Amino acid sequence: MKKHIVLLPGDGIGTEVMEAAKEVLTTIADEFNHSFSYEVHDIGGVAIDFHGTPLPKQTVEACNNADAVLLGAVGGPKWDQLPSHLRPEKGLLGIRKALDLFANLRPVKSFDHLLHASPLKEELVKGSDLLIVRELTGGLYFGTPSERQQNGQSVVDTLFYTRQEIERIVDKAFQCAQTRRKHLTSVDKANVLESSKLWREIVEEKKQQYPEVTVEHLLVDAAAMKLITNPTQFDVIVTENMFGDILSDEASVLTGSLGMLPSASLREDGVGLYEPVHGSAPDIAGQGKANPIAMILSSAMMLRHSFGLDEEARLIEETVESILNAGFHTADLNMKSGQQIGTVEMTQLIVESI
Amino acid sequence: MKKHIVLLPGDGIGTEVMEAAKEVLTTIADEFNHSFSYEVHDIGGVAIDFHGTPLPKQTVEACNNADAVLLGAVGGPKWDQLPSHLRPEKGLLGIRKALDLFANLRPVKSFDHLLHASPLKEELVKGSDLLIVRELTGGLYFGTPSERQQNGQSVVDTLFYTRQEIERIVDKAFQCAQTRRKHLTSVDKANVLESSKLWREIVEEKKQQYPEVTVEHLLVDAAAMKLITNPTQFDVIVTENMFGDILSDEASVLTGSLGMLPSASLREDGVGLYEPVHGSAPDIAGQGKANPIAMILSSAMMLRHSFGLDEEARLIEETVESILNAGFHTADLNMKSGQQIGTVEMTQLIVESI
Ligand SMILES: [Mg+2]
Ligand SMILES: [Mg+2]
Repeated sequence: MKKHIVLLPGDGIGTEVMEAAKEVLTTIADEFNHSFSYEVHDIGGVAIDFHGTPLPKQTVEACNNADAVLLGAVGGPKWDQLPSHLRPEKGLLGIRKALDLFANLRPVKSFDHLLHASPLKEELVKGSDLLIVRELTGGLYFGTPSERQQNGQSVVDTLFYTRQEIERIVDKAFQCAQTRRKHLTSVDKANVLESSKLWREIVEEKKQQYPEVTVEHLLVDAAAMKLITNPTQFDVIVTENMFGDILSDEASVLTGSLGMLPSASLREDGVGLYEPVHGSAPDIAGQGKANPIAMILSSAMMLRHSFGLDEEARLIEETVESILNAGFHTADLNMKSGQQIGTVEMTQLIVESI
Repeated sequence: MKKHIVLLPGDGIGTEVMEAAKEVLTTIADEFNHSFSYEVHDIGGVAIDFHGTPLPKQTVEACNNADAVLLGAVGGPKWDQLPSHLRPEKGLLGIRKALDLFANLRPVKSFDHLLHASPLKEELVKGSDLLIVRELTGGLYFGTPSERQQNGQSVVDTLFYTRQEIERIVDKAFQCAQTRRKHLTSVDKANVLESSKLWREIVEEKKQQYPEVTVEHLLVDAAAMKLITNPTQFDVIVTENMFGDILSDEASVLTGSLGMLPSASLREDGVGLYEPVHGSAPDIAGQGKANPIAMILSSAMMLRHSFGLDEEARLIEETVESILNAGFHTADLNMKSGQQIGTVEMTQLIVESI
């Protein structure tokens, strides 16, 4: 398979973890006889420094012509005082919008060797393996009007969805569930919101097309509880933009491995942007300490969701898991036993095991 | 002090726990020389059975003339098949609305003796003592339009607030913080929502009036994380209706004592409705097993928030805590050690200790 990948390392540890992901991808390409080509572009703070904008036009163009995009991280204290339209984060929001990425996929998986770092009791969180599918371009964060009214005496925001926007995210979630444990939890507030009632109707309609997937509806407040009391009950969760924003961040801290979480944001044709959930960690940038696993797992998600290479993705994921279970870890994981190693050694271990 | 209290026991264990709260209140009245009078009315399933509606007119009238209202719980399988306007829950929503209860107060406190029941690691949750102040009458759950549009091809809900609605809930939260540890966390999504920007401005304005309270702003997704990773950092949290719905339910499971949580819903003049967070538990109704503590703590909240009797409220709360710490518990707490007792014995113990 021949694929062209745009790499946006960004700021801080972004460069180091991107290097790691590229090495892993090169190994996979050799092993499975694929041909991946790469093109590096600027985004975030580094783009402000070199181009005067967090999202240069050539970056957008390159991404639009790519089969997939890998992003490291953006931001740092150097750019914190800039006016808001010039912040590094605007580059990230801008590229998501420019690519029309409507589906945000956030997997959360517990690693047996890291359970001590979870805020939850180990027996409760052990075995958790869930995927939150969040609608990313509609809902309350984008609807209009969103403005002051009555001379500033009142304010309004608008939650708007078209049927088609709900259908495509629900389809995506069913497709994800089919490749996993075949259970879908649709989260809404259908006892109150009209948009949630339509959401629930569409899930009910769509489930006819995916008969092997079992479907459960859960109110968002109950979902916020059950993520904590029973995280292993979930497989795929699908929900609208704002609920997904809250629940995916809530879920991200459950397993104690926030630094290891990948994410994907997908366009309808399968092109996607893949990035770690963690930030640019300017405090440890350039020291060779950064944990490359979230970026490496993001590249595994790219293989699965943009290229359909499920076997290759699984190999990366299983390799990472076996190395963690052997006790190897980076400094951020704060482990009492096992062997602490740096970015390069961790990457080397993964590459050699593949 | 002379006060008139309406009691709405409702369904299931509502009757049993209401009896317990009344006994405790009678003891407090004797002890502190107050005169509390009571009037019992129907709500929920029992009101459907006797009056054909979950919220009879005489119940609303009585509540409107009361100094405060205590509510047990509503609902049960007997009424689950009725059309939605005739469900017991409609009685609850109806009375909240009829009384114009704009502030929902949900305290969450960990009890040292119950930490084993928490989903969180004990060292993390120990010492948690927070209060969520949720706006209850505005925001996304009540704004218009809330409807299908374009022949069912799209849907809209509306998040609307007046400046005055935000000001009164923020004032209430500052006042609560003043009587506690004097820290207020305001939760919003000010990086995206216009309503949250106004919310944050109002909190900033108001804090001038409460100089002894320290104020922190937190985005709702970050708040959903920090409630889990660092629950002891919070004192009072104030937030709008929907965010409060999600976060208060999330917070309710942190300490493992969901069956012990009280709540208050307040009107601007101080009249309030007080009820346990738990439901009517039809499976154990009438067996004398119900845990009366959430209802008793709800009556303590009534003394504090509607009657200004802080000393009396504190006495009830400290008594409950000391009895739990002595190892006494009801069946729901599922404890390995200590002594299991029923509703009447637990109430008796509390009454005798007061
Ligand atoms: Mg978020
Ligand atoms: Mg709720």
